[in-house]
Amino acid sequence: MAHRSRLAGFIIDCQDTPADAAAAFWSAALGYRAQPAYREDGAEYADLEGAPAGLNVEVQRVAHASRVDLDIESDDIDAEADRLEKLGARRIGFVKRWWVMEAPTGHRFCIVRMRDEDGHAAANSWE
Amino acid sequence: MAHRSRLAGFIIDCQDTPADAAAAFWSAALGYRAQPAYREDGAEYADLEGAPAGLNVEVQRVAHASRVDLDIESDDIDAEADRLEKLGARRIGFVKRWWVMEAPTGHRFCIVRMRDEDGHAAANSWE
Repeated sequence: MAHRSRLAGFIIDCQDTPADAAAAFWSAALGYRAQPAYREDGAEYADLEGAPAGLNVEVQRVAHASRVDLDIESDDIDAEADRLEKLGARRIGFVKRWWVMEAPTGHRFCIVRMRDEDGHAAANSWE
Repeated sequence: MAHRSRLAGFIIDCQDTPADAAAAFWSAALGYRAQPAYREDGAEYADLEGAPAGLNVEVQRVAHASRVDLDIESDDIDAEADRLEKLGARRIGFVKRWWVMEAPTGHRFCIVRMRDEDGHAAANSWE
């Protein structure tokens, strides 16, 4: 059974920075529109709207060092985690609705559920 | 005099990983096409072709910890560095052909010269 995936976007993790303040800088830097910050399960996020090709860009307040994390979206996140494991990544854990993975290059990234197609790049299909 | 800028893409910095090996993983993960690694002034890069909206995605072999760095491209990189300083970023230094900046959120990013327009998102114009 084939499944599909593609780059979903990236999360700008900002150490000890309120999401509204982080969104104010990064939206102005990138020319995107900062949305109001929101909380979910103790985490604090703000979306930046206007990225090309439907890419999801958001800031997140974090306790760890600031970094940028890539997200991959898939219509079958378990099959995608299996595919990426075969490429050398490893599962770190399942959080809320997504797989947290570690690339063989040491980067943390997430596999999230695929959103609708409008304006997005074509997804890759994997057998 | 107005100048323009937009998100150029991102660089996947890979600690102690040959660029060909890093490109093999990330191209397969994202469904992009890995180009052969090349060296420039002692640095080692490989481009990943196929990102949406003309975004530039590449891997780089680095000595520091692995991370993802955003690039902003502009038709006037000095004016763009000035604009971003007023938003709270600071100049770290000019390297080869680009400004290395630090965001108020602690992220390093670069301001690079704008490439041609084909298939790219519209740039933002700043007075």
